[in-house]
Amino acid sequence: MLARKLLAEFVGALLLTGVVIGSGILADRLSGGNTAIALLGNTAATGAILYVLIHALGPISGAHFNPAVTLVMALRREMTAASALTYPVVQVAGCVAGAVLAHAMFALPLVQTGQTVREGLALSEGVATFALLFAILGVSRAKPEAVPAAVALVICAGYWWTPSTSFANPAITVARAMTDTFAGIQPLDAPVFIASQVAGALAAGAVGMLLFPSARGADVVNTR
Amino acid sequence: MLARKLLAEFVGALLLTGVVIGSGILADRLSGGNTAIALLGNTAATGAILYVLIHALGPISGAHFNPAVTLVMALRREMTAASALTYPVVQVAGCVAGAVLAHAMFALPLVQTGQTVREGLALSEGVATFALLFAILGVSRAKPEAVPAAVALVICAGYWWTPSTSFANPAITVARAMTDTFAGIQPLDAPVFIASQVAGALAAGAVGMLLFPSARGADVVNTR
Amino acid sequence: MLARKLLAEFVGALLLTGVVIGSGILADRLSGGNTAIALLGNTAATGAILYVLIHALGPISGAHFNPAVTLVMALRREMTAASALTYPVVQVAGCVAGAVLAHAMFALPLVQTGQTVREGLALSEGVATFALLFAILGVSRAKPEAVPAAVALVICAGYWWTPSTSFANPAITVARAMTDTFAGIQPLDAPVFIASQVAGALAAGAVGMLLFPSARGADVVNTR
Amino acid sequence: MLARKLLAEFVGALLLTGVVIGSGILADRLSGGNTAIALLGNTAATGAILYVLIHALGPISGAHFNPAVTLVMALRREMTAASALTYPVVQVAGCVAGAVLAHAMFALPLVQTGQTVREGLALSEGVATFALLFAILGVSRAKPEAVPAAVALVICAGYWWTPSTSFANPAITVARAMTDTFAGIQPLDAPVFIASQVAGALAAGAVGMLLFPSARGADVVNTR
Repeated sequence: MLARKLLAEFVGALLLTGVVIGSGILADRLSGGNTAIALLGNTAATGAILYVLIHALGPISGAHFNPAVTLVMALRREMTAASALTYPVVQVAGCVAGAVLAHAMFALPLVQTGQTVREGLALSEGVATFALLFAILGVSRAKPEAVPAAVALVICAGYWWTPSTSFANPAITVARAMTDTFAGIQPLDAPVFIASQVAGALAAGAVGMLLFPSARGADVVNTR
Repeated sequence: MLARKLLAEFVGALLLTGVVIGSGILADRLSGGNTAIALLGNTAATGAILYVLIHALGPISGAHFNPAVTLVMALRREMTAASALTYPVVQVAGCVAGAVLAHAMFALPLVQTGQTVREGLALSEGVATFALLFAILGVSRAKPEAVPAAVALVICAGYWWTPSTSFANPAITVARAMTDTFAGIQPLDAPVFIASQVAGALAAGAVGMLLFPSARGADVVNTR
Repeated sequence: MLARKLLAEFVGALLLTGVVIGSGILADRLSGGNTAIALLGNTAATGAILYVLIHALGPISGAHFNPAVTLVMALRREMTAASALTYPVVQVAGCVAGAVLAHAMFALPLVQTGQTVREGLALSEGVATFALLFAILGVSRAKPEAVPAAVALVICAGYWWTPSTSFANPAITVARAMTDTFAGIQPLDAPVFIASQVAGALAAGAVGMLLFPSARGADVVNTR
Repeated sequence: MLARKLLAEFVGALLLTGVVIGSGILADRLSGGNTAIALLGNTAATGAILYVLIHALGPISGAHFNPAVTLVMALRREMTAASALTYPVVQVAGCVAGAVLAHAMFALPLVQTGQTVREGLALSEGVATFALLFAILGVSRAKPEAVPAAVALVICAGYWWTPSTSFANPAITVARAMTDTFAGIQPLDAPVFIASQVAGALAAGAVGMLLFPSARGADVVNTR
């Protein structure tokens, strides 16, 4: 049922973004100016909620929360056209709602504009999104029940090995352009991020055709 | 057998609270005033013991250790009335015993009064408890054997993304009002926490009726 | 075959102790005097190697590496008398060899005498060992394949919530009395640690008779 | 099909090395000079990507990414001669490509020469590689589906308990001699590292004949 899938994508994107932005705010406040310590807390929280959300919602919607993932799955014919066309809308809406929720919890202005300059990072976001899709395609084919942990961990690694800290998701990039906190990005830099993410996802899709050819199911990542 | 279930809830609540408060004390002492570093230790210890306790005691009592969880399970008719009415008593008793144990190990006064002001956090505790119940309902339906890790990780995330650091449990809130250490809360702020936790749990119960409708078993989270 | 079991206990105790002491040395050197940061590294390394060793050696010897565990398993009649009487000898020998190995890798004097005062910690070590045996008995009964992760995590939690940082093992206590590094203990304080560990293990054995009555297998923790 | 195996080894070695070097660069920059904090980030990223890559690529190539692993598997007759002779070539090529990728993402000179002195560490690298192979041989025999987590965790432990921080891989040692960043090593010290790694791997192979005799499959670590 599409409505239930869309609700799952919305709630998942909301909680994911709430955690990404909220943990950035708290980590930044508590870390005494040591960015590496702040990033450790931000990383742990992000990976933890991804594990939870993909386990809970994977069997309903596939737990994409990410238009780049939806794009590749659509191109692989692993989801219906109706899902492919509507998922991105609720993913963006959910991510924006998550940013607002994080701001509300910390009693900050609900809608903000990102000020963090993140330029010259096109390669970084392309590689980060390549790694994310590579993990999804490879592990969902090799061992579906390990997908939640693998996605969580590829993003944890991405927070540290890419200079852009792996946004790797066009929907969350939009939401992060709407926060002037630790996880923010100035709107000017967002389009390059999004274009790079799409390119990286498509590259992983191409490599995936060589390494991970078989498709399975429709819409749903089998996490059993 | 109800007595065995109640013993499991008591011991689990005791060890959980002992770890939450004890690790807060040690982390605070060792971290040289950097609260983010202290919170990393506190987070790791809390998540670790939750994984252990839910695996060990889930098949006996369901491993709630938390009246908010018991409330939702009772409303979903997933536990007996006898359990629903008696669990909260031993959960509070276990949590208080855990606070006393932590104080005893560190040679501190056994009974204390929390001094930490935690006001303006109603939304935060509501969201934290929503996320906890959302994880329990979703993952226990989708992949029961992942519940211990998922509950541990949703609390780890909660320590970082909510400004209240996710108490998310009325019983442990009572116990934390009885310690003047890192994990403490002044008794004046406890009622708002508890009311928010109940509200967040009920909201997750409502969303859960839409997303995770099917019930399973009685009392026991199947972690096999 | 007993010889293979004893070899497994020896190598496991050696690698475990090497990691506990070695990671303490490196973490202490790199952490710039912040003990909490050092303890994070020490905790991660210890938990990581426990997961590995219990998975690799559990099917051979049960992966005790710890006379307190062997004692409880013997009392529960879950291992042979021959194993129960010989395991502790090789466990101590393996732990001491691990201390020597760690010293050799860091080019320190191979045999040392611990100088760290750890007094007034009898309750702490009793509780720590109780928690360890509680985890082993509970999880091996409820979900044997989760034992390696559960043992790793109960020790990770113990490093943070007990003021003695959870030695929880008489054999490793002997070895840690032979190192004057981060993980050391002065020999004068070791007997109280060991007596408390035995008491805590026996207490967990008693509670385990109530909560986790059924026995399974002989010698070997079934981690499948 | 050998070509697909070689592609898997290449991409895996590339991503692994990219993460090792890239996370070293970022962690070093953000940590304010506290090496232990930098190593925590470096450790988390390395362990995370190993878990992902071994799950994704294990069923294709065995996910060695490491000539020392390939050597032992070849001696155990667990892979074909064609694979054994060609894997090391693409492993080295992949690791070097990963170093170049990390430099490109951080806008550094693509090819560099390591300056970090790492002498007197022959024992350390021998022990580190022994532990890695011990984990692979033991866990692949006892519980194949735990191999990805076990390999990730034995390397995480190695980063902390060995003074050389566990390169444990001749191919990545070559690549790390080509970076003048956190993870680098001066070329002069690389041959001793590589010789020690081979010696440690062979020692683990010998112990493995006693403790973990049975072989399984060809080329592929069964992670199911």
